[in-house]
Amino acid sequence: MAEAHWETLLRISEEYHDLNGSAFQVLHTPPSALEFSRLVHISRPVLIKEFHVPAHSAWTNEYLIHQMGDRNVSVAVTPNGRADAIAADEQGKLYFVEPHVQQMTMAELLSKLSSSWVRPSEASGEAFYLQSQNGNMYTGNELEPGNEACPSEFEPLRKDVPSEIDWCCEAMGKHPDAVNLWIGDSKSTTSIHSDPYENIYTVIRGAKHFTLLPPTDGCFMEERSYSHATYARDSPSSPLTILPSPNPTPPVRWSSISDPHLPNNLPSVAHPIHITVEAGEALYLPAGWWHHVRQSGDITIALNWWYDIEMRGMTWVWLSFLRGIGDEVPAANWQEDDNDAET
Amino acid sequence: MAEAHWETLLRISEEYHDLNGSAFQVLHTPPSALEFSRLVHISRPVLIKEFHVPAHSAWTNEYLIHQMGDRNVSVAVTPNGRADAIAADEQGKLYFVEPHVQQMTMAELLSKLSSSWVRPSEASGEAFYLQSQNGNMYTGNELEPGNEACPSEFEPLRKDVPSEIDWCCEAMGKHPDAVNLWIGDSKSTTSIHSDPYENIYTVIRGAKHFTLLPPTDGCFMEERSYSHATYARDSPSSPLTILPSPNPTPPVRWSSISDPHLPNNLPSVAHPIHITVEAGEALYLPAGWWHHVRQSGDITIALNWWYDIEMRGMTWVWLSFLRGIGDEVPAANWQEDDNDAET
Repeated sequence: MAEAHWETLLRISEEYHDLNGSAFQVLHTPPSALEFSRLVHISRPVLIKEFHVPAHSAWTNEYLIHQMGDRNVSVAVTPNGRADAIAADEQGKLYFVEPHVQQMTMAELLSKLSSSWVRPSEASGEAFYLQSQNGNMYTGNELEPGNEACPSEFEPLRKDVPSEIDWCCEAMGKHPDAVNLWIGDSKSTTSIHSDPYENIYTVIRGAKHFTLLPPTDGCFMEERSYSHATYARDSPSSPLTILPSPNPTPPVRWSSISDPHLPNNLPSVAHPIHITVEAGEALYLPAGWWHHVRQSGDITIALNWWYDIEMRGMTWVWLSFLRGIGDEVPAANWQEDDNDAET
Repeated sequence: MAEAHWETLLRISEEYHDLNGSAFQVLHTPPSALEFSRLVHISRPVLIKEFHVPAHSAWTNEYLIHQMGDRNVSVAVTPNGRADAIAADEQGKLYFVEPHVQQMTMAELLSKLSSSWVRPSEASGEAFYLQSQNGNMYTGNELEPGNEACPSEFEPLRKDVPSEIDWCCEAMGKHPDAVNLWIGDSKSTTSIHSDPYENIYTVIRGAKHFTLLPPTDGCFMEERSYSHATYARDSPSSPLTILPSPNPTPPVRWSSISDPHLPNNLPSVAHPIHITVEAGEALYLPAGWWHHVRQSGDITIALNWWYDIEMRGMTWVWLSFLRGIGDEVPAANWQEDDNDAET
C-alpha cells in the first residue's frame, strides 16, 4: 500500500475512534423499529440483554434429539476448530481452508461436543461445528411473499425460531436474507472477517465471545490472497489433511490476523471491542464490522438473522473504500519462517 | 492534491454514482418518522410534494406588513445578489464577501424585491435578501426543555411557523438547531456550499431551484482559501464596495465554482442533480450535500429547519474525508486573468 494512502486510512481510523471510543451501547429490551433504524444509521454494536425466542427455553439436548430424530444434518469438521480460516499444510504453504462436511444425526453431533471450556490450543481431537451459514433455518427467498418454503435440515425446529424479527424487519423494510443455526463447543472459533449484512445474533445456550473492530480498522486486518483448500480424509478413519482445490478455484482474500483477542496479535493502533453474549442476550453486529468469535459452555447454540445492507446511499461505497475493494492485495503463500525458501 | 489521492476520490465519486444514479425520490406526503429515519440513513435528496404549515396560506404581502408593523429586520444587501460568495475587488483580488446588513421594515423590504424573474447577470440595482441564517425564527437553544424563548425579529410571525417538524424530530430524536426564514427575489442566489445539517426546506411563495451534488463530488468543488471581506458603503447613498476584513480575520475555505447550473461550470465528471421546489413543497437536503440555490417568482419566501447531523458512527468521518478536512487547500488570491501579475 502506498505510504500516503496508508496514512489516510490511519487518520480515518483515529478520527473514527476519537469520535466514537470503544464503548458499546447496552439495551435491556429490544429497540422499537424506529430506535433500531437510528442504531443502523449509527452502525455500532449494541448488546440487548433480554431477547427471547421459543428456542431459548425449549432447546435441551433431549428435545433437540427427539425433534430431529434420525435426520442427518451437515456438520463442519476440522482438526483444530478453525473452519474457514488460514492454515499451513505440512510443507508450510498457506491456504484458506474450508471444513470437511460430515452428515450425522443431532444425537451424534451433541455427543461429539466437548463438555468443558478449553482453549482451542489445548483441545485434542477433531472439532465439530454446525455452522453451515447458508440460511439453514430459513432462506431469504422463501420469506418473500408468494414463494414456497425451501426444504431445511432443521424443519422440526422451525417452530422455535421466528423467521422474522419484527422491529428489525420494520426498520429495514425487508425480510432477512438468511436465518442460521450454529451448534458447537469451545474447540471451535470463527476467524476474523466482515460481512455485508446487518446481523442480529442471539445465544441460545452457552456464551459467545466477540472481538469486534470497526470498518475503519480494516486497514489493520492484513488481508492477503490465499489459495483455496478443503479439509479432507482418505477414508472415514483417516485424519483430516489439507486438500488444495483444483484449478481454476479462485484465491480467497482473507485477513492474516489470527486470534485477535490474544495480546499483541493486533497492531497497537487497532481499536478492538470485546463483547460477551450470554444465553438470552442478542448482539446487533453492524454490517462491515470485523468480528472474531469464540464460544464457551458445554454446548453453545446460537441463531442469527442476516439482513442485506442498505445499498442505496453511501454505506456500501464507504465500506468498499475502507476494505480497499478493487485494490490488489499481496499473495500470502508460505508461513513466515519459510519465506526464505521461496524468495 | 497528490495524484493517487485524487484518483481515489474520483473512483469513489464514480462508484457512488454507479450505485445511486442521479434520480431523486418524490413523496406525495411527508414520511412517517420511521420512513424518514431510513431516508436519513440513505442520505439522498427527497422532494415532498405536499407540505403545509400555516405560513403557506397566510403570508400575503399585506399580512406580513401588517403583522410586522414598524419592526426592523436585518436584510443582506449586495450589488449583485451574491451574498457569502467569492467576488473580486477593483484590482481583481478575490475575497469571500459577506453582505452588507441593513435594517428595514417588512414593508420596505417587500417594496425593494423585484417583480419579475430575471437572470442575476441581467439584474440592475442592489439585491436585498432576508437570509440571516442564525435561527431567525427559532434557535435550537430555546427549543430545549426548560430554556426561555429568545427574542426573534419575527416574533409576530411565529404562530405561522411550527418550531418542530414532528416526523423529523421523532426520527432524529432531537429538536432542530435552527429554524430560518428567507425572503428574496430572483436577483439573489446562494453560492455552492455544504452544511453539517440535515435540512428540511419548504417554499412558501415562488420557487427555489437547487443544483445539488453528493458529498462524493466534493473533490470537484475546487475549495480554496479566500481572504475575508464585507460589502460596505461610505454613506447611506454610496454604492457598496468590498471592504477587506481587518487582521487577524481568518481566511475562509470556499468553493471556487460559480453558477454550477450553467453549462461547463462544473467538470464533466461531476454529477449534479437539479430540483425545483415550488410553493407548498419541501425538500429533504441531506447533510454534506453541496447545494447552489436560485429563486424565481415575484417574491420568494422559504423556511428551513436545520437538524444537527448524527455525530455518532461513521457519517462525520466520511464527510470530513470527502471534503479533505484537515488537508491544506491552496490560497486563491487573484482573478485568473491577473495571475501573471502576482506570480
